[in-house]
Amino acid sequence: MRSSQFFISTLKEAPNDAEIVSHQLMLRAGLIKRLAGGIYTWMPLGLRILRKVENILREEMNHAGAVELLMPAVQPGELWQESGRWEKYGPELLRLKDRHQRDFVVGPTHEEVITDIVRRDVKSYRQLPLHFYQIQTKFRDEIRPRFGVMRGREFLMKDGYSFHASFDDLQREYRNMFDTYTRIFTRLGLEFRAVAADTGSIGGTGSHEFHVLADSGEDALAYCSDSDYAANVELAEALAPTKPRGAAGESMRKVATPNQTRCEDVANYLGLPFEKTVKAIAVMHDEAFTLLLLRGDHTLNEIKTGKLPGLDPFRFATDAEIERFLGCQLGYIGPVGVDPAKVRIIADRTVAAMSDFICGANEAGFHLTGVNFGRDLPEPSIVADIRNVVAGDPSPDGKGVLELRRGIEVGHIFQLRTKYAEALNCSFLDENGQSQFMEMGCYGIGVTRIVGAAIEQCHDERGCIFPAAIAPFTVCIVPMGYAKSETVRTAADALYTDLQAADIDVLLDDRNERPGVLFADMELIGIPHRIVIGERGLKEGLFEYQGRRDTEAKMVPAREIIAFLKARLCAA
Amino acid sequence: MRSSQFFISTLKEAPNDAEIVSHQLMLRAGLIKRLAGGIYTWMPLGLRILRKVENILREEMNHAGAVELLMPAVQPGELWQESGRWEKYGPELLRLKDRHQRDFVVGPTHEEVITDIVRRDVKSYRQLPLHFYQIQTKFRDEIRPRFGVMRGREFLMKDGYSFHASFDDLQREYRNMFDTYTRIFTRLGLEFRAVAADTGSIGGTGSHEFHVLADSGEDALAYCSDSDYAANVELAEALAPTKPRGAAGESMRKVATPNQTRCEDVANYLGLPFEKTVKAIAVMHDEAFTLLLLRGDHTLNEIKTGKLPGLDPFRFATDAEIERFLGCQLGYIGPVGVDPAKVRIIADRTVAAMSDFICGANEAGFHLTGVNFGRDLPEPSIVADIRNVVAGDPSPDGKGVLELRRGIEVGHIFQLRTKYAEALNCSFLDENGQSQFMEMGCYGIGVTRIVGAAIEQCHDERGCIFPAAIAPFTVCIVPMGYAKSETVRTAADALYTDLQAADIDVLLDDRNERPGVLFADMELIGIPHRIVIGERGLKEGLFEYQGRRDTEAKMVPAREIIAFLKARLCAA
Repeated sequence: MRSSQFFISTLKEAPNDAEIVSHQLMLRAGLIKRLAGGIYTWMPLGLRILRKVENILREEMNHAGAVELLMPAVQPGELWQESGRWEKYGPELLRLKDRHQRDFVVGPTHEEVITDIVRRDVKSYRQLPLHFYQIQTKFRDEIRPRFGVMRGREFLMKDGYSFHASFDDLQREYRNMFDTYTRIFTRLGLEFRAVAADTGSIGGTGSHEFHVLADSGEDALAYCSDSDYAANVELAEALAPTKPRGAAGESMRKVATPNQTRCEDVANYLGLPFEKTVKAIAVMHDEAFTLLLLRGDHTLNEIKTGKLPGLDPFRFATDAEIERFLGCQLGYIGPVGVDPAKVRIIADRTVAAMSDFICGANEAGFHLTGVNFGRDLPEPSIVADIRNVVAGDPSPDGKGVLELRRGIEVGHIFQLRTKYAEALNCSFLDENGQSQFMEMGCYGIGVTRIVGAAIEQCHDERGCIFPAAIAPFTVCIVPMGYAKSETVRTAADALYTDLQAADIDVLLDDRNERPGVLFADMELIGIPHRIVIGERGLKEGLFEYQGRRDTEAKMVPAREIIAFLKARLCAA
Repeated sequence: MRSSQFFISTLKEAPNDAEIVSHQLMLRAGLIKRLAGGIYTWMPLGLRILRKVENILREEMNHAGAVELLMPAVQPGELWQESGRWEKYGPELLRLKDRHQRDFVVGPTHEEVITDIVRRDVKSYRQLPLHFYQIQTKFRDEIRPRFGVMRGREFLMKDGYSFHASFDDLQREYRNMFDTYTRIFTRLGLEFRAVAADTGSIGGTGSHEFHVLADSGEDALAYCSDSDYAANVELAEALAPTKPRGAAGESMRKVATPNQTRCEDVANYLGLPFEKTVKAIAVMHDEAFTLLLLRGDHTLNEIKTGKLPGLDPFRFATDAEIERFLGCQLGYIGPVGVDPAKVRIIADRTVAAMSDFICGANEAGFHLTGVNFGRDLPEPSIVADIRNVVAGDPSPDGKGVLELRRGIEVGHIFQLRTKYAEALNCSFLDENGQSQFMEMGCYGIGVTRIVGAAIEQCHDERGCIFPAAIAPFTVCIVPMGYAKSETVRTAADALYTDLQAADIDVLLDDRNERPGVLFADMELIGIPHRIVIGERGLKEGLFEYQGRRDTEAKMVPAREIIAFLKARLCAA
């Protein structure tokens, strides 16, 4: 492609509302244009990246035996009512009425539609298994769309759905997809990690997320370098301390802690270790009040907590409720002296093993030190894993310690089991002529989000750094004076033709701009390989080559440039 | 592809609501599945056809210098309000509100969005011309969706938009697109015709439609075999008769024509030629009443008529209005003796040249014969071209006579001029630093509709007959007893591998079904080339070949089959 026949439109500054680097760079490089909140046009340069991602997905999904189809974006509300998600999905489901006042949605996902197709068409175990997928535009009406394509409203997804006669066969396909996703993200050239995941609202049991690793990622991932263990922190288990609780060594004392409401401040004020503090978090389930006890430096894991009996779902107590149940204001609340008939106490496993700890005194301006279970307050009736793991925690599989990385979720595979098959009556006759519900799996990849995640993972102050597999162009030719110098123009045109003949995806930047502008644009766009052609080099038969990650350029004999590039491309 | 790893699901009978043959065959062949009225899933077999169409479009559009992007399906209502189409578009525009109660539409077309992009990004004549296109899912809320993908609600379109600094440059690109569309439909393997077209509601001046020729087509096309003239009948001009009006030969007589209300019946009843009758059609523009006079065997052209002064727009008069203005009921109305102060008369050019004609007497049960302008009624004050052309009419370019064919509109190119640029203030600075509105063109192809049109054009009682360029597979191998005979299986597998190696798109039908079922399915699906492998043929080293259009099979030596097929494919 020649720049003059393409459309390159870069910006010096990103708009103010672009909060994260991928959003800023995608706008500056002209990969996307905002049409409305969370709704973007993919400009020619961005679309080239999308298409490269799509092609890799398609090749690997086909190779894995899945079959592509294309379902509609607009779906009848009836099917969502039948599955029960019309009520459950909430305002993220974009609902609308057609001209005949019939309910429709712009689909955020396609479990209902594909299950409807399969229940009409498939009657016998002999027709199973099946795995259909599509690459299709979806809509999710996010309340606060942001971060560009990372949390957009309209987005492109690869979504696949498999149907099976048995759970065993679902598990076989699930492993097949785990391996396929691993191949896909490897081919995309991204550093990623697959982690066990909470299934969230999509339902079913058994799921893994695929995350692109990036410091800016919204998700925290826990993994063990000594084993295969890897999980979203939402799900990672914090084991109980192996060391038994120490004996009480101090007596309980009430100490004044004026204006000290956070555990860290209380510890500093009293000159005691942060790890000796216990914080109490007040939550409600309907009208039932519970105090959750966590070590001061730990954080609450809402997912794990929400699965405990009597806390599904829970919400944080209001100031008025805290006042009513504990007679005290936030910042000084604690578990000592509360009425067990009104206040349930759940201690994190770590807290249950603490002695001589510090906690709120249920009196404004005061804390207690030297507190011990069984002496100053009853043993906690419930001990549970309610905290987020931290680096250095023992791995739940007993094989080492946990490390933490941050990630951006770009893929998710689920074992849905028979959830949708039962809701939509999708059944088949087994070998014995018995009717059974189909076992289902579903497998998603956020196609548009991958582009943002790739930039979050790899960029510098000059712009995007794309993996070669998905860069908008693999190589750019930057002629120094294409319009002015016939020598340069002839050499650039010849190299352009040669690279095309060698099946290398090349951009010839033949715009009539200063070299500084061309360099800056090619770096901003993130093209992995750059060849500069100037009169001085040409006199000695040399081109200048620089990789996007290289700190220096090197001169390469013109006649060796194709072999040189091919070696570079293979190495990448 | 192997059938066993693909998804083939054919039906013996088409659902009752499938009215036309392409809809019936697409459902029977399992190319599409209905999700809701006018909303279809493209099943794997159908999607393969769509993708082949898309690829040809993409190659030719890129080759023509257009640049692909991808605009959102969901568009903000504001832009439609700005262009004025929020009010004008009517209920076919699917409107919706997001969770914040802001207006959006599911886009039926993208003039507003692309103009918004260009007005923000393009400031100078040096950045022009530009031509962006996309292949994207659209929605048009048809009141009565029918004919499957031919008049669906959700559909796939290739839509392109060009921007120019001058009308001359727009015309250059328009010709470029005319040639590109001609190449596209030629490559698709369809018999088609480009015709001058009415621009309809999209606005602007200058447009051509591309029609796939098929007897079932909704549009009538007029063309001249002796020249380049071709136009949609909506637009085709009916010239005035060259022969002057004959002199009056009869005197006017009132004759009883009890219960004869149609011209044809009146002529038969009176034993006079149909071509001597004149029908009067009563229409209204606001409160103004007009009688349109047409020869009895001609039909009214509403498009041409609607462009006449004082008839833009017009509607047909009600029975009560006819009674009020003419004092007579429908079936016997005519132009003689009406009050020129209340009733305007417009005569078609053909009628203006008639003498001694027959028309209604404005009295129930009676007609007039021997009627003559200038004697029995005034010369018509307005003579205009208001009828549809018929076969045998002189071509408007004066080079022969018109023939008629029916067609299905699959492409449309428009010169929009500055309509949208003015509405949305899309301007640029010209070479003199003056601000000018951009000249725009737009160019659409109905991607999904092409599949239906191809089937309407070519099918037989056994099913679809696809052109090789867009058939879901080019060749199918049908083994007689794949499961039972190792000889057959080995030969089929070997041929399958060989054809794949030769880069031929092949389907090996390895399903465990009776040969009759396999044959019927492959014919229904419309695969152009079939190779049957059976034990008997193999003993003599022969495969059986039959083209989908061939009436007989022929035996081909196994070792020559690839060369044989390649020759066939080249010939296609």
